[in-house]
Amino acid sequence: MNGKKGSVEIDILHVGPTKVALPDSAGKSFGDGATSCLDLARNVYDFCKEDVNRLIFSLKVGLAVLLVSLLILVRAPYEVFGSSIIWAILTVAIMFEYTVGATFNKGFNRALGSLLAGVLAITIAQIALHSGRVGEPLIIGISIFFIGAVTSFLKQWPSMTPYEYGFRVVLFTFCLIIVSGYRMGNPTRTAMDRLSSIVIGAVVTLLVNVLVFPIWAGEQLHRELIRSFDAVADSLEECVKKYLSEEGSEVPEFEKAVKDELVDEPAFQRCRSTLNSASKLDSLANSAKWEPPHGKFSHFFYPWAEYVKVGAILRHCAYEVMALHGCLHSEIQAPYNLRIAFQSEIQDAASHAAELVRSLGKDIGSMKLSLQASLLEKVHCSTEKLQRSIYTHSYLLIAGHGSVEASGPTLAAPDTCKHLAEAPRDLSVNTPNGSETCYELMKKQHRKLHSWPSREVDEFEEDAAMVSLLPRMKMLESTTSLSLATFTSLLIEFVARLDHLVDAVNKLGKLANFKN
Amino acid sequence: MNGKKGSVEIDILHVGPTKVALPDSAGKSFGDGATSCLDLARNVYDFCKEDVNRLIFSLKVGLAVLLVSLLILVRAPYEVFGSSIIWAILTVAIMFEYTVGATFNKGFNRALGSLLAGVLAITIAQIALHSGRVGEPLIIGISIFFIGAVTSFLKQWPSMTPYEYGFRVVLFTFCLIIVSGYRMGNPTRTAMDRLSSIVIGAVVTLLVNVLVFPIWAGEQLHRELIRSFDAVADSLEECVKKYLSEEGSEVPEFEKAVKDELVDEPAFQRCRSTLNSASKLDSLANSAKWEPPHGKFSHFFYPWAEYVKVGAILRHCAYEVMALHGCLHSEIQAPYNLRIAFQSEIQDAASHAAELVRSLGKDIGSMKLSLQASLLEKVHCSTEKLQRSIYTHSYLLIAGHGSVEASGPTLAAPDTCKHLAEAPRDLSVNTPNGSETCYELMKKQHRKLHSWPSREVDEFEEDAAMVSLLPRMKMLESTTSLSLATFTSLLIEFVARLDHLVDAVNKLGKLANFKN
Repeated sequence: MNGKKGSVEIDILHVGPTKVALPDSAGKSFGDGATSCLDLARNVYDFCKEDVNRLIFSLKVGLAVLLVSLLILVRAPYEVFGSSIIWAILTVAIMFEYTVGATFNKGFNRALGSLLAGVLAITIAQIALHSGRVGEPLIIGISIFFIGAVTSFLKQWPSMTPYEYGFRVVLFTFCLIIVSGYRMGNPTRTAMDRLSSIVIGAVVTLLVNVLVFPIWAGEQLHRELIRSFDAVADSLEECVKKYLSEEGSEVPEFEKAVKDELVDEPAFQRCRSTLNSASKLDSLANSAKWEPPHGKFSHFFYPWAEYVKVGAILRHCAYEVMALHGCLHSEIQAPYNLRIAFQSEIQDAASHAAELVRSLGKDIGSMKLSLQASLLEKVHCSTEKLQRSIYTHSYLLIAGHGSVEASGPTLAAPDTCKHLAEAPRDLSVNTPNGSETCYELMKKQHRKLHSWPSREVDEFEEDAAMVSLLPRMKMLESTTSLSLATFTSLLIEFVARLDHLVDAVNKLGKLANFKN
Repeated sequence: MNGKKGSVEIDILHVGPTKVALPDSAGKSFGDGATSCLDLARNVYDFCKEDVNRLIFSLKVGLAVLLVSLLILVRAPYEVFGSSIIWAILTVAIMFEYTVGATFNKGFNRALGSLLAGVLAITIAQIALHSGRVGEPLIIGISIFFIGAVTSFLKQWPSMTPYEYGFRVVLFTFCLIIVSGYRMGNPTRTAMDRLSSIVIGAVVTLLVNVLVFPIWAGEQLHRELIRSFDAVADSLEECVKKYLSEEGSEVPEFEKAVKDELVDEPAFQRCRSTLNSASKLDSLANSAKWEPPHGKFSHFFYPWAEYVKVGAILRHCAYEVMALHGCLHSEIQAPYNLRIAFQSEIQDAASHAAELVRSLGKDIGSMKLSLQASLLEKVHCSTEKLQRSIYTHSYLLIAGHGSVEASGPTLAAPDTCKHLAEAPRDLSVNTPNGSETCYELMKKQHRKLHSWPSREVDEFEEDAAMVSLLPRMKMLESTTSLSLATFTSLLIEFVARLDHLVDAVNKLGKLANFKN
């Protein structure tokens, strides 16, 4: 993790290979012929303001290379270690990562790799030394080939891939020590010099990284997870709001949806980046494990892995939001007046669910466990109300169907939730056109409907044979109405998954000693 | 891209931070105390057999380091370049990537970075040389700090992130040249020696990578895309098959679904890895752009970017498959007999759609454009049949509803598709229990139903007041039946998106000169 927000949020849907999903600084690029110097300066300023850690990180790298270069410039260490001291610089440049944890992790890889390579190289060099003038280069050559092939093979093995960098270090350290040892005659000395200058570089890197404005992977992971909760909640509300608004019924161009150019849906884009953040959370949690206790996370063995689990369950919920969004931009749309008929129930269920998600995120943020029971009950209650309403008015969902009576039975409500009992509703109340019935409105709207398959509907418009058209239109209307059922089913499934999310957050709270 | 299949398919849902989504070699790990040597050997053999390129790549790396080490062992180049020649080894170890394109790309980064750093270092060193004994280290120190900070800042800039490696190269090459130049007195000589040994290393790397069993990124991209088509088609069929089979009605544990442990659904896992392969396709396409024409891809400027676009639209279709899969494992399930009532229509639509997707994949694979018109028509036809059937029998979807008559009107079928006209069906034919009606069966099944909210249903079972239970049960049944509507809507939406997929493949075919 090195602060490259834009590049980490790899965009599942984005099309152009060079386009990167950017945060607020979207679309800025260096060297954009027309941008004046002033514009560039403003862009840079915005970029730093967005996350001041970016600037801090840069200055820290500068400081670290300066410190290690000073070691060489002041002459004393140079005389002790000779030209090997330049390895200290190389170590800083390669090892310095964005977060403390990632730096520790890379340092571990480098240290273990160098040590392993050193031991191997010295052993083989000693064997080679005693094999005569012909045998020596032969043994060295074969060992180089062997180490090259084995490290390259091992790093492809699935359980070894996290240590890919370590294997590279083994390979080149081994080659360098054994080859220059062969030329300079004292492999042990070469190895020791190199190892000690690498240690110097590593120590400087770690000290600067930990002591000067440390950027903790744990802190980043914590904030990232909270942000994901907000993104899912916002996206759910945005999606439902659009679904219930008039514009929602317009199907955007397919190309736009694929190319991620739905600029008016910022929350959806954040939600999608949540779906793609699995690898980000993973690598942050991996780095965080290497960090000592710090700040809010004050006890050893803080359960970072639990963060990843909560993230996974949150993503599982977010899949439903993606599906809801798919409904919103589907080519088959329920008519506006039908959607509006269930407006209050859908809105209630969605806003309560979003509130619950947001409150869970807040709990993690403040590291306090509040009682979610009442919120959860509210969500269940409003979802049940939605279910009941769909049941009571399910005749609307097959409105094209001639034989259905336009009234549902009134239910005797159980006592768990209030306001559940309701009379079959008169659709005309909610529509702008006054006294028209739902069925008539639908008839009127049928030309506007983007029903599938659009191609064949076009063919029909050329066709004047209205005789066979009517039942077919009815059929399409029926399918479009069922799209509302799809939307509500998905919403209900989302709520059903929230139970598991609450459990997961509670478990995290227990393991991480959140206050009650 | 370096062949680490397992690590590339980062798993959106996987929970444990150490678990990696593996190909067939899942679960193998080195050092598993109990595995005997024989087991290990067999695992390694399987791992290589799965993709023989892994072995080839390893041997190639061995060969390249051996070749470059020989340059030093044979003495002549060593005498010309001195100890700088070890940079050739470093270059090979760092630059050697899995595919030809990625190696070219990294080589470009390294070359440009080294060149830039060399020019900068020599310029600043010359300035420093003329600034007196006090000024020299001061200027060098400031320039090192400045370069460290600027390169670290630039590599975080979104449009610069692909060149991250280049910036690292600039930083350490600059430091090395300027520092060792200061100590050794001739920065230009140091820079030139280093540059030429880097060139030697780069040339060896490129020659070995291109001439010895080259692994082309373009080839990999081509195969990856075809595999994605198959994965989506297989997954669709698997999902529909499970939905229509008896076991499909059992809801798996939520934990299992989140943890990706649905072992009996291999195609689903492949489909999900397709969804996560966006970054893989992207980076392969990026690498492929660097490759010269080769094999089947024999003309310059082959449209690799178009592959990424087709992949994006395929993923857009795959989202619907994910949603279908969500339905399959949803906590709210349509009763089995209702699902089976629409069996033939659902199966027809799904298998025709899968056939179309598979045939598109085959077209790309053979680089020939076959006429998809008849297949597309078949798909449309069977989907329309499904729509019609849902319409005709939509009274079944609100079966809990007392006031609905148990028969729909028979439609006069238009002539476009055959077999569309059908009588209202008798559900009892398809169910094992002979003459029972759908409604009665549902009543029987209601205890088995995993309807939401499960907690409250449990409460009911303790409650003996059956009076308020009955309407409530009916309501839940109604919602469960609507889940079938959700499933079919999603299936129809999937088919609707196939039109765009066909268009995208045709466009790719035109740009890439596929045969007709």
